[in-house]
Amino acid sequence: MISKERIKQLRALQKKKSRDLKQEFIIEGAKMIEEAIKYAPDNLLQIFGTEPISIALPKHTAFTQIDDRALAQVSALKQPQEQVAVCSYLTPRQAPSDFYLALDTIQDPGNLGTILRLAAWFGVEKVIASRETVDCYNPKVVQASMGAIFNVEVEYLDLQEALAATDLPIYGALIEGENIYQKNISRKGILVMGNEGSGISKSLLPLITDPVTIPQFGKGESLNVAMATAILLSEFSRPRPL
Amino acid sequence: MISKERIKQLRALQKKKSRDLKQEFIIEGAKMIEEAIKYAPDNLLQIFGTEPISIALPKHTAFTQIDDRALAQVSALKQPQEQVAVCSYLTPRQAPSDFYLALDTIQDPGNLGTILRLAAWFGVEKVIASRETVDCYNPKVVQASMGAIFNVEVEYLDLQEALAATDLPIYGALIEGENIYQKNISRKGILVMGNEGSGISKSLLPLITDPVTIPQFGKGESLNVAMATAILLSEFSRPRPL
Repeated sequence: MISKERIKQLRALQKKKSRDLKQEFIIEGAKMIEEAIKYAPDNLLQIFGTEPISIALPKHTAFTQIDDRALAQVSALKQPQEQVAVCSYLTPRQAPSDFYLALDTIQDPGNLGTILRLAAWFGVEKVIASRETVDCYNPKVVQASMGAIFNVEVEYLDLQEALAATDLPIYGALIEGENIYQKNISRKGILVMGNEGSGISKSLLPLITDPVTIPQFGKGESLNVAMATAILLSEFSRPRPL
Repeated sequence: MISKERIKQLRALQKKKSRDLKQEFIIEGAKMIEEAIKYAPDNLLQIFGTEPISIALPKHTAFTQIDDRALAQVSALKQPQEQVAVCSYLTPRQAPSDFYLALDTIQDPGNLGTILRLAAWFGVEKVIASRETVDCYNPKVVQASMGAIFNVEVEYLDLQEALAATDLPIYGALIEGENIYQKNISRKGILVMGNEGSGISKSLLPLITDPVTIPQFGKGESLNVAMATAILLSEFSRPRPL
């Protein structure tokens, strides 16, 4: 059973203000919950579901049985999955790294989720994001990340300050950049991806030491930022001839 | 002005059955209409909008002024753009090619649209798709393609028959494939991408001559099919050391 008050609290977590206040966010579906158990068990606080989860839960994680109606009220999805869970905000790990992805005002939650999933695949442990970038605990970001939110640390900061303070090479995805397939690159540096509509902010451009571009082979007008990130992370990760 | 009957006809084009019957589909927004004017002017039949289009229209293309209410009724988007247009089905161009993308039961319209956009970027002129793949004239596919629908031909066919009949190498994106970064590949052949959940159909597996895989660098559980297509098309298109 779940109280009306608790339903209200959970629904409130769809908004950034309430999330920041409680330092909690929502994940949905067995797959996501399994990822939480695997990578962030301490953060998995409570599960609500019409069905229990088939794998063992951390000792501190309570499971509360709810009906379809309550599930629909609590879920942010049009077609809710069988479980919804509350997680506490993830703790920064501050793992040392020499390759970062930097996001300049990525606004679409689906794009950010996809980019986190790509970062997890390519072993990018930390993403730094401008404060104007969509919140990584936004329900649509969390779902699109397919659990990558538990593997990739996202830090929101003043991107201009952060880029000005580093000695690492700063790669930026720009239309007038060097051909990424021909440029001599190594997986050491910061790769900056810009906003969906306007690209990398003017104020950051002077900080980019290595502008790179994906050459166009056909008539396609553009690549979306998540697709461009996929191709660039692949290029930074793949072995290259000496 | 637009009649109630015409609104009904346009709304019906959101369904495949009606589209196939009329051989017409809907595009939305000035950007898409500009792509149609550029690449398929003959197919651009009629535009309905709260604002006219700022560039010259083909002679045969009528513009009909409508109000916000009618626009909302005609549009498939939650937040309609200022114009909606009717296009006739695109004619197969049968351009000879030796590199094709083959889609085996791609079901998500956003994925198909993104894949078409990638195909357009990487100059893949023809995509062949199993009959179970989502319709390329589905409004969500058309919008996600960002105009690529006008540049990339999509043919629906019996994929098993088509693959059995070719002499080209058949690459398939599979978990147990050769490392795409190490394999000696060339941009000649057919690249098969499988369904979002179940991958390439069992019946097609014996036809794959060259299974390929994108190696995992981090803890990420999976890549979605559009991201994997981005990375693989990049690999097939980029120059490679001899």
